[in-house]
Amino acid sequence: MSGFDHKKYRPFPTINLPDRQWPNQVLDKAPTWCSVDLRDGNQALIDPMTVAQKKRLFQLLVKLGFKEIEVGFPAASQPDFDFVRALIEENMIPDDVTVQVLTQAREALIDRTIEALKGAKKAIVHVYNSTSTVQREQVFCLERNQIIDIAVNGVRMVKERVEKHTDTEWRLEYSPESFTGTELDFAVEICDAVVEEWGPNPEQKIILNLPATVEMSTPNVFADQIEWFCRNIKHRECLEISMHTHNDRGCAVAAAELGVMAGADRVEGTLMGNGERTGNMDVITMAMNLYSQGVDPELDLADVTEIIQVYEACTNLEVHPRHPYIGELVYTAFSGSHQDAIKKCLSKYDASKPWEVAYLPIDPKDLGRSYEAVIRINSQSGKGGVAYILEAELGLKLPRWLQIEFAGKVQRYTEEQARELKQQEIIDLFQQHYLNTEQQFELVTYKLERSDNDFLNATIRCGDQIIELSGDGNGAIHALTEALSAYIEQPVQIAEYSEHALSAGSDAKAVTYVQVKLGDAVNTGVAISEDTVAANLNAVLAAASALIQEKDLIAA
Amino acid sequence: MSGFDHKKYRPFPTINLPDRQWPNQVLDKAPTWCSVDLRDGNQALIDPMTVAQKKRLFQLLVKLGFKEIEVGFPAASQPDFDFVRALIEENMIPDDVTVQVLTQAREALIDRTIEALKGAKKAIVHVYNSTSTVQREQVFCLERNQIIDIAVNGVRMVKERVEKHTDTEWRLEYSPESFTGTELDFAVEICDAVVEEWGPNPEQKIILNLPATVEMSTPNVFADQIEWFCRNIKHRECLEISMHTHNDRGCAVAAAELGVMAGADRVEGTLMGNGERTGNMDVITMAMNLYSQGVDPELDLADVTEIIQVYEACTNLEVHPRHPYIGELVYTAFSGSHQDAIKKCLSKYDASKPWEVAYLPIDPKDLGRSYEAVIRINSQSGKGGVAYILEAELGLKLPRWLQIEFAGKVQRYTEEQARELKQQEIIDLFQQHYLNTEQQFELVTYKLERSDNDFLNATIRCGDQIIELSGDGNGAIHALTEALSAYIEQPVQIAEYSEHALSAGSDAKAVTYVQVKLGDAVNTGVAISEDTVAANLNAVLAAASALIQEKDLIAA
Repeated sequence: MSGFDHKKYRPFPTINLPDRQWPNQVLDKAPTWCSVDLRDGNQALIDPMTVAQKKRLFQLLVKLGFKEIEVGFPAASQPDFDFVRALIEENMIPDDVTVQVLTQAREALIDRTIEALKGAKKAIVHVYNSTSTVQREQVFCLERNQIIDIAVNGVRMVKERVEKHTDTEWRLEYSPESFTGTELDFAVEICDAVVEEWGPNPEQKIILNLPATVEMSTPNVFADQIEWFCRNIKHRECLEISMHTHNDRGCAVAAAELGVMAGADRVEGTLMGNGERTGNMDVITMAMNLYSQGVDPELDLADVTEIIQVYEACTNLEVHPRHPYIGELVYTAFSGSHQDAIKKCLSKYDASKPWEVAYLPIDPKDLGRSYEAVIRINSQSGKGGVAYILEAELGLKLPRWLQIEFAGKVQRYTEEQARELKQQEIIDLFQQHYLNTEQQFELVTYKLERSDNDFLNATIRCGDQIIELSGDGNGAIHALTEALSAYIEQPVQIAEYSEHALSAGSDAKAVTYVQVKLGDAVNTGVAISEDTVAANLNAVLAAASALIQEKDLIAA
Repeated sequence: MSGFDHKKYRPFPTINLPDRQWPNQVLDKAPTWCSVDLRDGNQALIDPMTVAQKKRLFQLLVKLGFKEIEVGFPAASQPDFDFVRALIEENMIPDDVTVQVLTQAREALIDRTIEALKGAKKAIVHVYNSTSTVQREQVFCLERNQIIDIAVNGVRMVKERVEKHTDTEWRLEYSPESFTGTELDFAVEICDAVVEEWGPNPEQKIILNLPATVEMSTPNVFADQIEWFCRNIKHRECLEISMHTHNDRGCAVAAAELGVMAGADRVEGTLMGNGERTGNMDVITMAMNLYSQGVDPELDLADVTEIIQVYEACTNLEVHPRHPYIGELVYTAFSGSHQDAIKKCLSKYDASKPWEVAYLPIDPKDLGRSYEAVIRINSQSGKGGVAYILEAELGLKLPRWLQIEFAGKVQRYTEEQARELKQQEIIDLFQQHYLNTEQQFELVTYKLERSDNDFLNATIRCGDQIIELSGDGNGAIHALTEALSAYIEQPVQIAEYSEHALSAGSDAKAVTYVQVKLGDAVNTGVAISEDTVAANLNAVLAAASALIQEKDLIAA
């Protein structure tokens, strides 16, 4: 545990910009988005994506509405090369989508890059070299002018090559990599040189991408850097200023937002901020931040469930439960006063007016989510928390009448225990009351026939006896209550009834919840079975057993 | 999937503050920290903490250096009440730590709150009521002056009660809850009224806490709100301005940082940002952001491993692998050029000078971490990635010589396959080459005795035969190589040797890596056993088997 000592670090230098204008700006339109999920995102995975995963993610990105997608670093990676070729050769790139590829400013790599893009309708060649002080001095041991030469030579090589492939609509992107660690005057100098080499043209703007390769300052200082750069770069009208922020200080979204206010036109980022180290700017969060202020995000994020599925399947990373807008807990209020305020606002919400609900910055339904009332399970808890746990843990979606009934049992138990209950205790309590009950009647076999009506013949174990019950009715449950009524010579009725599938697919189970009425007494039965009819019958038998036994209607 | 439609939202109003000063400020000292892990953090957990967990977390917070800790909402929750009592009655609160409790401004709750704090040396009573437009209009249906009455009456009730308990050093904190949704002039008006009621005193500052209960704007607008508030509030010299930001827009840290620049003195937050919905401001990130700029964070975060352990054990939430400063991937470079730059900078780093290493904003060692070179496992991969996977998946810490040897095998295999390898394939490859080998010699039993030297007697299965080997040497391995040498009549030597425990505790296993030399030939053996000596012997036998067999030194 060697020294935790702040003195080995230096403050980041401030930018002299007393007349900065960005704090007066408001975000009122979406920037041009460029997804770098398939390049920066992919390269930061322990297990990089397969071609199949890359295709799936590319298709999602297209569907969400990205018009610029960085698809790899084909000159450095054979799999990236193969993927770019597959996209082009399999005609996977819509006409309004431009693919972008990264390359260093070296001849062999540039040749290979151009080869990878052969046949693309529109392509951005993204050339970079490192320009920061520390990289110049410690990694490359080169002077400023030598670093400029690398960039300019690279751009010249790209220019010479693309001029020979006129079937593709080419654009240039240049990144002074580690921009945040580069002296601003040098960043402008090298970018000016690149622009001169390529040739400024307002009809076909050069993208100058300013990466916070490492996030090094508070986001306002980054915004100052962007504004300073935009003010001092030549041929501004021929340029699209792009940003590529990372999240080392947890402020990548803030930096990008303030950077757009400071003059940037374009933002590179990834879904959920996947990327090197702490990750890239999270496009979902920034887009939803715009959306929540009434600004068209120019991305369609309605199907968050699909986005999460594809993301998790492709990256093997999980979405954090508190991830803005999409985490599983972010539309959950645990506090009773929050729950109450949300309930009141929702009941008054008029869909013709702007959204205004306490504690819910957006309507969860916009993203296919719902407001989940999760309550702590203590003596102040209500039915919501109990129901939530049973659904989350057992997949049981209790009907409202059973939520109320069971919450009462939980309440009494917590009062007895005088403490908060663990989730497992709630589950145990439910199982003990409804699933693992000893019952008088147990289903052995049944036969169900349907003509006008359903006719049920059921073999039932009753203590040591096996009894045969028969009855008919509209459905198995009705037929069984008729059969039971005949057997005990008193009317058995269904007061409440609900059922649902427990899981998907061919091995799905069904659960039935019934409340059975016998005279003035009611009792609840719950049964789970792979067979829906068996679940129905067992739930009725479970509920009826106790009632019949209580009334001593048959010999034990 | 009902309408994904930005038009139902409105932009957040901007603050008219053209002469704002905060963008000229620099963070050069830590704010006063207040941890709300045990209140806001706890209430947002599906499974709230037990008293034991709360005590463990409280002790960690004290150890990290928090001097103000919000410990609960005792009037609303019996477990919180019991916890506060336990802290006081068991003397768990150091003299320099002030506990803080939350309460609404209602008489019965305030009475109960004061009761909870009886006997505390120093306490902050944190009174709040909701002041936002939406809450006034939709939840409480009250006018501004009625909302002010609630706050002022609450503060008066607190004042009357604390004056009777002079053994405690009391402070008042007041929060206009949902400050970010409150008109600024009204926020100032209600806070002025509270301050007048309590009585302004520069010697015992009132804490005015301005919660971004919901994050509603870009962080610069929040900073404008804070600066406007600080400029317009009366008795500024008698106040400590606090903030409590939430992360709905992913910018809670940025908001708090800009808010301190704008004049706030104090920040409420939690470890890793646990809290309602998207969570609170993450104190770890903000503190480390200060640290990385040479500012004393006034928290000791050196033992990140312990912080993560306690956090995960108490909250049942996992730290995201890309969490700034502490996630498992954040000191990992996947890109070859990043790896190269880091290596060069680290080799030139002079500990007497400020830290300056490309791609690593801080020295991972400060937090008890190390720089882990993780490489994609494709044909360009080196030993680092291979070693990383074996350590992460099997717990094996390969010695450098074996990393190089095995990386060569991986490289040849990837070239044959012409694709990237999955982690499992690396593992399989390792097991196939080193762990599941067929071997000539297998250890059956051994006896090891120590006098001057170690004397080994080993029973070994060699095909269908059982042979007895004996030898002595300095340690079991040496004794075995002597025995083998005698048996085959050629010198068996150890070229490389390394071992480590595979897991902790009484069921720990040991792994041994050896390279055995026989004539000019070398071979590697790896063995895992619950018995360190058996691991040693088996590794030697595994390595020697193939060499001996190859040279045909014994009959099969």
